[in-house]
Amino acid sequence: MIAPDYGHAFTRWRDHAPAWPAYTQHAFVEGLRTGTLPRENFLHYLRQDYIFLIHFARAWALAAAKGATLTEIQAASGIVQALANVEMPLHVQICAGEGIDAATLEATEEAPANLAYTRYVLEAGYSGDFLDLMAALAPCVLGYGEIGARLQDSGGPYADWINTYAGEDYQSLCRDVGALIDNALLHRLGPDWTRLPRAQSLTDHFATATRLEVGFWQMGLDGP
Amino acid sequence: MIAPDYGHAFTRWRDHAPAWPAYTQHAFVEGLRTGTLPRENFLHYLRQDYIFLIHFARAWALAAAKGATLTEIQAASGIVQALANVEMPLHVQICAGEGIDAATLEATEEAPANLAYTRYVLEAGYSGDFLDLMAALAPCVLGYGEIGARLQDSGGPYADWINTYAGEDYQSLCRDVGALIDNALLHRLGPDWTRLPRAQSLTDHFATATRLEVGFWQMGLDGP
Amino acid sequence: MIAPDYGHAFTRWRDHAPAWPAYTQHAFVEGLRTGTLPRENFLHYLRQDYIFLIHFARAWALAAAKGATLTEIQAASGIVQALANVEMPLHVQICAGEGIDAATLEATEEAPANLAYTRYVLEAGYSGDFLDLMAALAPCVLGYGEIGARLQDSGGPYADWINTYAGEDYQSLCRDVGALIDNALLHRLGPDWTRLPRAQSLTDHFATATRLEVGFWQMGLDGP
Amino acid sequence: MIAPDYGHAFTRWRDHAPAWPAYTQHAFVEGLRTGTLPRENFLHYLRQDYIFLIHFARAWALAAAKGATLTEIQAASGIVQALANVEMPLHVQICAGEGIDAATLEATEEAPANLAYTRYVLEAGYSGDFLDLMAALAPCVLGYGEIGARLQDSGGPYADWINTYAGEDYQSLCRDVGALIDNALLHRLGPDWTRLPRAQSLTDHFATATRLEVGFWQMGLDGP
Repeated sequence: MIAPDYGHAFTRWRDHAPAWPAYTQHAFVEGLRTGTLPRENFLHYLRQDYIFLIHFARAWALAAAKGATLTEIQAASGIVQALANVEMPLHVQICAGEGIDAATLEATEEAPANLAYTRYVLEAGYSGDFLDLMAALAPCVLGYGEIGARLQDSGGPYADWINTYAGEDYQSLCRDVGALIDNALLHRLGPDWTRLPRAQSLTDHFATATRLEVGFWQMGLDGP
Repeated sequence: MIAPDYGHAFTRWRDHAPAWPAYTQHAFVEGLRTGTLPRENFLHYLRQDYIFLIHFARAWALAAAKGATLTEIQAASGIVQALANVEMPLHVQICAGEGIDAATLEATEEAPANLAYTRYVLEAGYSGDFLDLMAALAPCVLGYGEIGARLQDSGGPYADWINTYAGEDYQSLCRDVGALIDNALLHRLGPDWTRLPRAQSLTDHFATATRLEVGFWQMGLDGP
Repeated sequence: MIAPDYGHAFTRWRDHAPAWPAYTQHAFVEGLRTGTLPRENFLHYLRQDYIFLIHFARAWALAAAKGATLTEIQAASGIVQALANVEMPLHVQICAGEGIDAATLEATEEAPANLAYTRYVLEAGYSGDFLDLMAALAPCVLGYGEIGARLQDSGGPYADWINTYAGEDYQSLCRDVGALIDNALLHRLGPDWTRLPRAQSLTDHFATATRLEVGFWQMGLDGP
Repeated sequence: MIAPDYGHAFTRWRDHAPAWPAYTQHAFVEGLRTGTLPRENFLHYLRQDYIFLIHFARAWALAAAKGATLTEIQAASGIVQALANVEMPLHVQICAGEGIDAATLEATEEAPANLAYTRYVLEAGYSGDFLDLMAALAPCVLGYGEIGARLQDSGGPYADWINTYAGEDYQSLCRDVGALIDNALLHRLGPDWTRLPRAQSLTDHFATATRLEVGFWQMGLDGP
């Protein structure tokens, strides 16, 4: 299948991230697709993902703080809002359905692979500017979109999870984030930004964050 | 009249900010109350206030990035959302009604008094933690609430502006922010936080931000 | 006289900062040159400048935290070291000679013009990247160099102050900082960075910081 | 043997960090002590440690940026200076002696365990205040001191490495950092800070950073 189109920067960055296939086609992902992933591993992943989402929401809030225009601030804060008021309550609900109550969720010890990825993204944002943060955030947002699109119609025990990311709402969000990134690059670095030395450091952020996403799936696969 | 009750920390901080009366009863505010403030000065203030709101939204986004719990992240990001999607578009509309189009608004040069206040708040947040940011943000959010409550029913040419801050929506927001601050203090520093050395640095942030609010009104009074 | 050469970026930025002459030829500076500045105003300036230096050292420390190479980290941390261990103790000593003891110095209330400039620089650095911070720091470091060079040999009661900035040590520091900035731009944005949209936001930082430097001199001239 | 005394906070924090023994008595450390650690693993560690030191220097620079007093700024910037101008050049020299030239060192890909620890520390500092940063930095600075003191006189092929951390210079630095932390706590939270809720979040930073230090040694043991 053809990968979905989330814009110019994403297409370039994924082609320059050696770990991209290891991330998007990780054995954990294949286990979701074929339905062979043990439930225990999925639940371990879900618990870590709850903590992940808190820091992910914080990272998008930092993006809003670092936005240069009202449009950027609105886009980033809209994502924080969606994460904090829709995605996270939904997560709590899914976990409750699996017998993991909110207190257990809150008490989960954050795994090193989780710490590595979330803090890398946040630190890239704090030490750099809006673009550095976008490049570090992109593998997660857009990688899940690409995975969702590829796993669409897989059915099986993980169909709900798959459909969340394969669905039009999430795919539309991915196209919006891709456009946000392309516009942010254009308005700061101009149309030929890929020729600037800066392009390399952005690619590095994307590639490193991708490596850390591999570690996140692996943490799920290794189990609790 | 009795000042509205926005919680424990606010009551304490305003009593320790020498410039509080100079801020909340500034000649600019009295001009709004009596209706004698020249329209030209009000419009100058409105133009600067538009730029102010951008940085104010960024500061609340930083608060969301620095929040320790989902509740804090939700509260702060809800305010960013309200500022970016309600208050700022409304501001653009009010200015349009006064003959100031969006392009003029965007092209306004930020006045030193505006730079001083907004950057002080943001820097207090970046260099310190969530509490430092709250103490620096409080004079604006809650001071406008106190001013609104005092000017309620003043009528006159500035009745719309007054009613925005005197209205139940804004007063309710002030009580929520006051509670957010009180809870944040309790969960970090405990019930006896006012006895800690840290209480002084928080009071200092509040008092300094209050001094800079005086400068903001003065900028409006001095005119363009 | 010909302005000293502190590199390419500085030359460009000062030519695009409308307030540059108002800053470098401010009445306060002329008072230093002619010796007509009242001592009281100079001492007021010195007291504020002590607080300024604390935040200035913090801003250079932030530059070290945001540096991309060991060279940038070494350069920025070397300046922090010089400020914290040489310039500030010297300042304390000069003030002591004028009858202002350390306790008085520490107890000085920070003036709005001081808050405005230092927090603007720090916030530009926190919200942006190394380049944003450099553009906001440059007017102070390099402007004092230009003023020192112009006032050289003026003699009079402020000869000591003048000679500090006119001296080879400080002039050499200015050339080093100019080169640090030019290299940082080259290694991030390439040789044609002036054609990028990003060039405008850097110029804006320099120009705004220059406006706030005018306010700092004015604060000295207005007196305590 | 009795662990060296680096002050009150450190003693408390290490007693509340479950992973402290797993960190300070890790198989990698025992391999250094007995001399049985393969050279290849030591060199892998050294290469990663070079990258580590860059981010560690940046973290101390951030501490200087977040310092509240001249004393804190001086102490933190003194450490940056020592790291950037003494420790890192020394590191380059040691690696050169082992046949790893500067270019190879610079080209080393940062391992996930390295990313996890350094970014955790930096992010704790950016999102929190000076104390959060100190609590996250402490396990590295003071843990190496404790390890050095314990391994003292072990001799063997790693005697140089051991003596660096066992030596009076480093031990003295540890006592200074311990005092810096105790004073920072006292001046912000008062003498009874251990009873505040805030004490828990500081302990959490210390304990999490300790877990990530275990991962760093493990990375060395697993080899390239």
